Amino acid sequence: MPTVRVTRRAHFCSAHRLFRDDWSDEQNREVFGDCSNPNWHGHNYVLDVTVEGPVDPETGFVMDLKQIKRAINERVIDDVDHRNLNLEVPWLEGTMASTENFAVAIWDRIASALPEGVRMHRVYLQETPNNSVEYMGPAAG
Amino acid sequence: MPTVRVTRRAHFCSAHRLFRDDWSDEQNREVFGDCSNPNWHGHNYVLDVTVEGPVDPETGFVMDLKQIKRAINERVIDDVDHRNLNLEVPWLEGTMASTENFAVAIWDRIASALPEGVRMHRVYLQETPNNSVEYMGPAAG
Amino acid sequence: MPTVRVTRRAHFCSAHRLFRDDWSDEQNREVFGDCSNPNWHGHNYVLDVTVEGPVDPETGFVMDLKQIKRAINERVIDDVDHRNLNLEVPWLEGTMASTENFAVAIWDRIASALPEGVRMHRVYLQETPNNSVEYMGPAAG
Amino acid sequence: MPTVRVTRRAHFCSAHRLFRDDWSDEQNREVFGDCSNPNWHGHNYVLDVTVEGPVDPETGFVMDLKQIKRAINERVIDDVDHRNLNLEVPWLEGTMASTENFAVAIWDRIASALPEGVRMHRVYLQETPNNSVEYMGPAAG
Amino acid sequence: MPTVRVTRRAHFCSAHRLFRDDWSDEQNREVFGDCSNPNWHGHNYVLDVTVEGPVDPETGFVMDLKQIKRAINERVIDDVDHRNLNLEVPWLEGTMASTENFAVAIWDRIASALPEGVRMHRVYLQETPNNSVEYMGPAAG
Amino acid sequence: MPTVRVTRRAHFCSAHRLFRDDWSDEQNREVFGDCSNPNWHGHNYVLDVTVEGPVDPETGFVMDLKQIKRAINERVIDDVDHRNLNLEVPWLEGTMASTENFAVAIWDRIASALPEGVRMHRVYLQETPNNSVEYMGPAAG
Repeated sequence: MPTVRVTRRAHFCSAHRLFRDDWSDEQNREVFGDCSNPNWHGHNYVLDVTVEGPVDPETGFVMDLKQIKRAINERVIDDVDHRNLNLEVPWLEGTMASTENFAVAIWDRIASALPEGVRMHRVYLQETPNNSVEYMGPAAG
Repeated sequence: MPTVRVTRRAHFCSAHRLFRDDWSDEQNREVFGDCSNPNWHGHNYVLDVTVEGPVDPETGFVMDLKQIKRAINERVIDDVDHRNLNLEVPWLEGTMASTENFAVAIWDRIASALPEGVRMHRVYLQETPNNSVEYMGPAAG
Repeated sequence: MPTVRVTRRAHFCSAHRLFRDDWSDEQNREVFGDCSNPNWHGHNYVLDVTVEGPVDPETGFVMDLKQIKRAINERVIDDVDHRNLNLEVPWLEGTMASTENFAVAIWDRIASALPEGVRMHRVYLQETPNNSVEYMGPAAG
Repeated sequence: MPTVRVTRRAHFCSAHRLFRDDWSDEQNREVFGDCSNPNWHGHNYVLDVTVEGPVDPETGFVMDLKQIKRAINERVIDDVDHRNLNLEVPWLEGTMASTENFAVAIWDRIASALPEGVRMHRVYLQETPNNSVEYMGPAAG
Repeated sequence: MPTVRVTRRAHFCSAHRLFRDDWSDEQNREVFGDCSNPNWHGHNYVLDVTVEGPVDPETGFVMDLKQIKRAINERVIDDVDHRNLNLEVPWLEGTMASTENFAVAIWDRIASALPEGVRMHRVYLQETPNNSVEYMGPAAG
Repeated sequence: MPTVRVTRRAHFCSAHRLFRDDWSDEQNREVFGDCSNPNWHGHNYVLDVTVEGPVDPETGFVMDLKQIKRAINERVIDDVDHRNLNLEVPWLEGTMASTENFAVAIWDRIASALPEGVRMHRVYLQETPNNSVEYMGPAAG
């Protein structure tokens, strides 16, 4: 049974800002630039979730894509689409709303929803066509 | 001298929401759905400005692209990138921050910066890969 | 009230073939080439529906995008996605399943669903990234 | 001599369906959904073949791209483009026509055509912009 | 018989520079900037040729796409792909190698190859993802 | 502190040719085909630089994207954009101007500009949408 990776892509639109409330406005502006704008800005995010596992000889699938799609929708998109990442997402509370931290949090949201025998491989999160991050999981450090 | 259209593309990221403060929250939610979220959301906008005019036989240009680029940057991007379209853009004040109204406002910002003999043809504004508008100017109605 | 065009994009996957049953296999092969393969082939179609109308001063909309989206889904996508265009789409029966005819048929499906004051402007249908058609309506001939 | 990966992209259009003939129609519909439609559906597939090897100091190449291109065309595209993956591709016979199995089969078709010193690294196969698989070879399990 | 537009896309890679030999190097640099670099630069051009005509009721085609493809290949791509636009293209001789002039010249190359009843509608030529031109023909001025 | 990869994308336009001056014109043409055209050709290159490191708990960043962007601009783009890769880039002198060698050279240009604790992961260089290379560094051989 060959091992194959399967990727499901999703899109969502959110507002956010980068800032620390234990820093002055000047310090935030110096480190985070325009991204710390107090009135927010936003992005069309692109999210790729990649899982890996053996191909089931009966179905030809690593896992049913409808299951990954449902996990992405129910555990990520429903919470973040048309939302403010700093104010409205319980599972991002207490972290800087950077793309890096966001990708790590998404990994944890999806990993626990996978069927037995299938493992997370990668979370790719694109903030703009020119800026993106990949998280390969806690074992990849 | 043939007439040719020239298009310059630009990108920016903004926050916005759709709502009327003379409507109740329920009414806003009913008409504008998730787009009226009080904590904002945002987009990676794609903007195409198309101008039209005769080709200058000396340069082979309709107009210098650096001029269009500068007009787009100074009159649009600098005001809206990493900004809140509802709160921080003087030339959008008093209008619904819909993509339609935004495109019309951009037309007016750029049209007055064109050299003689060159006219605006189209403002194309993409809010998401699936939603976009085109404005062809006041004479096109 | 400025006139603006609004475009909604949708995606679907279908099978089809190009052939005439009043022609021999050789004739079909000669005119339609690989596209007449008796065992079918298929595409990821991209559909852009563009409508035009005055901007409503109350909402900032030409029309509610949810309405266009619903019309596209209920009158086109639900009938063609993961379907065979030659065998399973009642409103394509009796016509060659060419991209040209398909675009014309889509126009008619959507046009009757538009609210008063909004008119169809264009149906753009992409069969592959290199092949696409546009239909501007019966008045544009 | 540094080791570099080289990727060649190709496109093709095919029809397929997901189903098992030892299952009832209801069972097929339940597991495979719309993808089991008896009248087929199809896709514009995107295929990336990535090979890896040392850079030849004389040519600056890992291998001649014309060779990869020819292998992809003669061993994959010619057999699948405008074809039915379930009915017309000898090297897919007896396997579920899933994207996973398809990618594994493509690996085997290309691997035997590589020059000495160059090895397959990855087959990436995109069925739709939102659904794709990667196969890294039998040693990667 | 409805009138439909059909677009065929092609890609090619060329070198060029913008300069006038009756101008000094300083003048060329001032007007054309980096684009006048004496050692050339180059682009991956994207070309869309759009034709318009009635749909043939027998084939469902405005015209056979293989014919447009052949005209684009034989009359444009073969002459410009992997070539220097200033030095090696007879039908660009004596004109500034601007995108505007290039698009106008391509129109003339293709228009004479169309079958009766089909007319050119548009030549779209993209030099970079951010810079493009459209030529609608001599009658559109 | 999780380890995350961050990618910054950049674009540039250059001219080049593939040839060896110790080979005859015939030999160059035979090995490199159209790519050895003596009058050059060119491309819109896409460059992705990916770095890897622990997420700084204070900023949520692996490193400040402005720093990567500056390194890419000052050490790569400024030297190659609108330039001739064979004639005008000191750090490519003496190597075949292949995409493979180019990617390796870019790795070395960027690696020395990274802050402590952050390492290069990948240089991806796309010459055309169908041809690209990845270099994973000297340790990846």
